[in-house]
Amino acid sequence: MQAVALVPDGPELRVIETERPSPDDGEALIRTLAVGIDGSDRRIVAGEIGGDVPAGADHLVLGHEAVGVVADANGTGLAEGEVVAPLVRRPVDAGSRFAENGELDVAPPGTFHECGITGAHGYMAEYFTANPEHLASVPDSRAEYGFFVEPASLLEKSLEQAFAARSAFAWRPERAFVLGNGNLGLLALARLATGDEFARTYCLGRRDRPDPTIDFIEAVGATYVDSRETPVADFADTHAPADYVFETTGYPKHAVDAVRALAPNGVATVQGIPEESDSFAVDCGAFHSELVVTNKALLGVVNSRRSHFEAAAEWLGDVPKSVLDDLVTGIYGLDEIEAAFANSPETLKSVVSFDL
Amino acid sequence: MQAVALVPDGPELRVIETERPSPDDGEALIRTLAVGIDGSDRRIVAGEIGGDVPAGADHLVLGHEAVGVVADANGTGLAEGEVVAPLVRRPVDAGSRFAENGELDVAPPGTFHECGITGAHGYMAEYFTANPEHLASVPDSRAEYGFFVEPASLLEKSLEQAFAARSAFAWRPERAFVLGNGNLGLLALARLATGDEFARTYCLGRRDRPDPTIDFIEAVGATYVDSRETPVADFADTHAPADYVFETTGYPKHAVDAVRALAPNGVATVQGIPEESDSFAVDCGAFHSELVVTNKALLGVVNSRRSHFEAAAEWLGDVPKSVLDDLVTGIYGLDEIEAAFANSPETLKSVVSFDL
Repeated sequence: MQAVALVPDGPELRVIETERPSPDDGEALIRTLAVGIDGSDRRIVAGEIGGDVPAGADHLVLGHEAVGVVADANGTGLAEGEVVAPLVRRPVDAGSRFAENGELDVAPPGTFHECGITGAHGYMAEYFTANPEHLASVPDSRAEYGFFVEPASLLEKSLEQAFAARSAFAWRPERAFVLGNGNLGLLALARLATGDEFARTYCLGRRDRPDPTIDFIEAVGATYVDSRETPVADFADTHAPADYVFETTGYPKHAVDAVRALAPNGVATVQGIPEESDSFAVDCGAFHSELVVTNKALLGVVNSRRSHFEAAAEWLGDVPKSVLDDLVTGIYGLDEIEAAFANSPETLKSVVSFDL
Repeated sequence: MQAVALVPDGPELRVIETERPSPDDGEALIRTLAVGIDGSDRRIVAGEIGGDVPAGADHLVLGHEAVGVVADANGTGLAEGEVVAPLVRRPVDAGSRFAENGELDVAPPGTFHECGITGAHGYMAEYFTANPEHLASVPDSRAEYGFFVEPASLLEKSLEQAFAARSAFAWRPERAFVLGNGNLGLLALARLATGDEFARTYCLGRRDRPDPTIDFIEAVGATYVDSRETPVADFADTHAPADYVFETTGYPKHAVDAVRALAPNGVATVQGIPEESDSFAVDCGAFHSELVVTNKALLGVVNSRRSHFEAAAEWLGDVPKSVLDDLVTGIYGLDEIEAAFANSPETLKSVVSFDL
């Protein structure tokens, strides 16, 4: 079968011919429909993060935002033809409590591989195998958008964490502010703008009109915030303080500035991973005081688990297809793989199609 | 009756003669047993924080860590002779949702007064009045230590917030690290060291032996961490990463450094309020990455509500009196009020007695 792989020397992105995997006991064989590409994938290909090949392999199959159909249930209880999205992490030790609880998203570093990212093959191949506990069901009606389940699951985890952190009192959030208009930011904005939790939504970018990201932001009913005019630290004064901030930029100072953008009792979740150490002068006195005096919360969130995939799949089944269509700016075959991984101001979400 | 008040000019600390309050409908009359003094009280007297007199008054009665007995139930349903500790905040608007929910601890600034701190009289007087919803019951056996309920309630709120923030997965904390060996830090350490939540406890200070705070830390079975040898940012490497950090220092950089002291999935609550703006060079890239990659949480916590007072009173009923005795280093009458408010390296908790 064909697969899209990273060969460590270079590193180099290649379409390779490799053996179709055979499911082990307890695993199903999945036929891939499509795989989305995100900023992490581009950083892996650029040699900036991840990219470790699995033990004994000479390449890493890429791709962690996948959707497929069950081709061979292999006695797992899955239904052949069922549409599924696979989780990203796999345990180094299947007997760890994190693996047994299905909570690899909170397992300590070093105790898991990340499929398509580091240490385990991903899903950008005609077929892959997976245990049902690492698969979430996707509504048939959304099979063609199922690659959104993985990134959307990160927002579901973040929302779960945010609401849990405010669960000891009557939190009544109204305004959500997404930092970043990349593909995760826009998908999160779509979820927040179409969900029931928030009455008003905002999205930070640094683009001039006309621009497809600004068009998308306004099409879902959100307010565009140009960071060149309104830095995150000035957001509360310029607009209104946010009850929830969802950060995707990985800009190092945004973890600190997000706290300033919050209303009393507000919560910010940070998901972006800065590329490197980066020192700034920070008014730690003001940062510390604001956290305390108005009961604010700052939470780091990475990865997601099956329940978050299921919540994301449920949302995907509810959201109008037109919103999803607006996010998909390119569907590529294996003969266009360089173009699929390229990025431009017009790129929102690029997808590699195996059978869309 | 006699009361300890702050007169704004100066400002000046004085024992004054004032009228005994009459309970309004719905209020009980409480006879004060004792009132503890904390760092906030000393800062109020120094003119650094709070100190606003109630509308129409020319002084502010001090004291917010009080215990008393019901002298006149006045039809409230309280039992005369019942031992009670009063909450700190009172609503500006009794019809606000925060007032109606009993959640003034998360009400926005400007919507409440703080008794004995700013805008409303405190409890350092022979009698005070209060509505039962602003009183928590204290076990009779701990009447003489009831002034610990208010500060201990802050830890109860912080623990509630910390566990709520980790409630969406199986959090199994083992190590707690208290930043600060002032009276709140040591009381919190006593609670954490004697409670069931943590197997190991640590407390940060910057004192040389022999020292009464180090003696107390070790007496409750905790490990003393000298910040001159082991700054907070080095704690995890020198000892072991903490699952929970409880900050009381108000040192501006501790909100940031606490995150570095945490284990994966750890949570830090910050309660200290820095005196002023204070800028430091912060590696925001590392701070941001650590939060994200290991799912860490940083929560600001201020004030507390009735359920936290009740939890604190319950703990107070369980903890050996000897632990509490070790914390009380001075009991003063009204004729020694300057001495009661003085501070020294030997001072752990000073208490003004009305009838202990």
